[in-house]
Amino acid sequence: MSTREELIEKSEKPGKEAMKLHPFYKGKIELGVKCIIRDFNDFAIWYTPGVAKPCLDIQAHPETVYEHTNKANMIAVLTDGTRVLGLGDIGPEASMPVMEGKAILFKYLGGVDAFPLALDTKDPQEFIRTALLLQPAFGGFNLEDIEKPKCFRILEELRQKARIPVWHDDQQGTATVTVAGLINALKVVGKKLDQVKVGFIGSGASNVKIAHLCFKAGIDPKKCIIADSRDTLGPYRDDIRRDTIQIEKWELCEMTNPGNIKGGIPAAMKGADVVIALSKSGPGVIEPQWVSDMAKDAILFTCANPVPEIFPWDALEAGARIVATGRSDFPNQVNNSLGFPGIFRGTLDVRALTITDEMCLAAAFELAKVAEDKGLRDDYIIPTMDEWEVFPREAVAVGMKAIEQGVARLKLTPQELMNMAETKIKHARDQVHSMMEDGFIKPVPKGLLED
Amino acid sequence: MSTREELIEKSEKPGKEAMKLHPFYKGKIELGVKCIIRDFNDFAIWYTPGVAKPCLDIQAHPETVYEHTNKANMIAVLTDGTRVLGLGDIGPEASMPVMEGKAILFKYLGGVDAFPLALDTKDPQEFIRTALLLQPAFGGFNLEDIEKPKCFRILEELRQKARIPVWHDDQQGTATVTVAGLINALKVVGKKLDQVKVGFIGSGASNVKIAHLCFKAGIDPKKCIIADSRDTLGPYRDDIRRDTIQIEKWELCEMTNPGNIKGGIPAAMKGADVVIALSKSGPGVIEPQWVSDMAKDAILFTCANPVPEIFPWDALEAGARIVATGRSDFPNQVNNSLGFPGIFRGTLDVRALTITDEMCLAAAFELAKVAEDKGLRDDYIIPTMDEWEVFPREAVAVGMKAIEQGVARLKLTPQELMNMAETKIKHARDQVHSMMEDGFIKPVPKGLLED
Repeated sequence: MSTREELIEKSEKPGKEAMKLHPFYKGKIELGVKCIIRDFNDFAIWYTPGVAKPCLDIQAHPETVYEHTNKANMIAVLTDGTRVLGLGDIGPEASMPVMEGKAILFKYLGGVDAFPLALDTKDPQEFIRTALLLQPAFGGFNLEDIEKPKCFRILEELRQKARIPVWHDDQQGTATVTVAGLINALKVVGKKLDQVKVGFIGSGASNVKIAHLCFKAGIDPKKCIIADSRDTLGPYRDDIRRDTIQIEKWELCEMTNPGNIKGGIPAAMKGADVVIALSKSGPGVIEPQWVSDMAKDAILFTCANPVPEIFPWDALEAGARIVATGRSDFPNQVNNSLGFPGIFRGTLDVRALTITDEMCLAAAFELAKVAEDKGLRDDYIIPTMDEWEVFPREAVAVGMKAIEQGVARLKLTPQELMNMAETKIKHARDQVHSMMEDGFIKPVPKGLLED
Repeated sequence: MSTREELIEKSEKPGKEAMKLHPFYKGKIELGVKCIIRDFNDFAIWYTPGVAKPCLDIQAHPETVYEHTNKANMIAVLTDGTRVLGLGDIGPEASMPVMEGKAILFKYLGGVDAFPLALDTKDPQEFIRTALLLQPAFGGFNLEDIEKPKCFRILEELRQKARIPVWHDDQQGTATVTVAGLINALKVVGKKLDQVKVGFIGSGASNVKIAHLCFKAGIDPKKCIIADSRDTLGPYRDDIRRDTIQIEKWELCEMTNPGNIKGGIPAAMKGADVVIALSKSGPGVIEPQWVSDMAKDAILFTCANPVPEIFPWDALEAGARIVATGRSDFPNQVNNSLGFPGIFRGTLDVRALTITDEMCLAAAFELAKVAEDKGLRDDYIIPTMDEWEVFPREAVAVGMKAIEQGVARLKLTPQELMNMAETKIKHARDQVHSMMEDGFIKPVPKGLLED
């Protein structure tokens, strides 16, 4: 465990190394060739004149674009750079290192080819229009780091209009992994989804989606109270009612807090079995006393970045039994990287038309099961990124749910899906390792990382 | 040499193989990882929290995006699918096999990362706007297979408005390689650029640009006659004058044919030292008699695809001395792949703001010189794609011209540029070969290509 200063210093080491390693590698992605080039004659197959035949085949049978090109495995990571990590609106160019990072996570963890595109517009309608025009090259869109409230509209409209699946990782991805952790935390303390009282702290894009997904998972909204920076949500929140963009947030005002309990964060936490906080960087946002006022065997997700709303040791001392954060240096990390690579793997492998909330839930339950299979503990409710089986197992769960819901264009068995996912993920990882061994990816030069 | 039937059959073999190999490899490109991943802790450098530092550096110093991301080596191959190869408007999805093919040519020949994006719009203004929005992720744009006349406007407007270099390969690329061939052909027959009579057959996007680049190279427009499908060009062509989009074509009406000679193709060819034909697929578009009516030591570029305007053997029999085509199965292939990889290599390596006509000419003269260094012959006026030195030598010529013209942001010596280009191209090729050896790119299964 660490003090605040140690935590911040710990955050700074990767940053220092990043400043040296990014210019050394000149970015993190490149265009890879995945077809054979035996000699120059092969270009007559891959380019003119031979390539004309696959082109005409696609013109006549549009679905064959998934056979003749990499569309079946290629998604775009789309952002406008308006809400990058905790850095805010730093602009599209400055967001590119994050987007390239996301791309290599997609590849290494899920075997998914993801290409980063930061769009030079802040206008949501223009963003949507541009995304729609980009569809021919991609099998899906991962939206990333777009500020609220426009991220809601962009996701909603793109899900309606696009012919390929669309995903906003800050909403669905975070929600999926959080729900997985919640499922297991409740198992550990022996409480049931439909019986617990839940307080939500913060009502940004992530927590709004988390709440909705929790309800789909079985949490009773009437047992929930949500607090934002002004007060608890309820039908009395005229400021939210008037906001025509944040419809999902207004729905929460109507669904939750039937007792019209006011009083902000402490009111939302009082007597709660579970508190899920994604508000602002701490510590000091949640006071120890409020944790003490929670129910017995309290479960606390304190997931603000870079610093949790309350330090885990303070929360534990105040009586919490299970604490989860967004950080890798505490136990129980709620890490988006546990979600999107496997979820897209499964979505692409069955050529799903969309990613439904039920597919997210299937991923959440399977992700929970991976940890359960290994034995749950107070400090192990969620797997970690290096547990290899997470991603193919999620892929199978997501793909089978898509088939069950009738949104998959390919019908495969669980075993077929498992083989596909394992093969593709192994291929991606082995390839990176091979390129490192063969020197195509150079080692870090001696002394580069020393001051 | 081949008959028409043999030629067509020859064209069909790559097509048949393409139909089997495209689905086997499921496309030709993937997302490659170019940075080290030693273990999962490295994601704290490449992604959150470490990545925040490079992001903030770019926000404070925008130029560092070229250091922290792959922007310096990444271009987009942009099309709307309206004029794909000789297939016409087959749509964006159906164009993707060609665009992926272009991407692997860029990589294998020039070490340039090129990402294919087929846009789902036919509106030139929307195309331009979308391209501008895509700039943060790219260091350049290669426009491809866009129908005329809108390709002119798109290129012109993007060259004015974009912050990164823009190239239309069907115009500048074809022109560069054709001029290289012309330079050498004239050397072979001992004639001078500024003294020859030239006939141009066809006035599509390619030939209009070829004519303009020829004039910059030293050809006297007053000694030229251009024929399109209606007649020769001249100030009497009111149909072209009224067309406000084809301004470059109208300029040709004013610059050439001072004698106002009418009579179509034969009139443009009569007495010409050089004829450059890029009109429609032959044979029979150019008659042998018209070749006989050319000057002594006649040079004929008969570059229609898939079949030349006149078969080379017929042209030679009719008295032509040097014949060039667009096909790889005849000598003297005018092959775009000899241009764009090296030209973009040099453009990117000096971080040029644009690609000027002078940079194209520098590439053309250097490309010509590669062949000259090996010894010119009637049937060897242009190098072939497998002559390795073509690409780095062009890159140096282009980069140095950009520096000379003040459009380069990096100042390098020819030797530095040569080292950079050679290293990057070798890296790209070796990597493909290594992946084939290690089985990451699978061999073609036995029997797959048999009927």
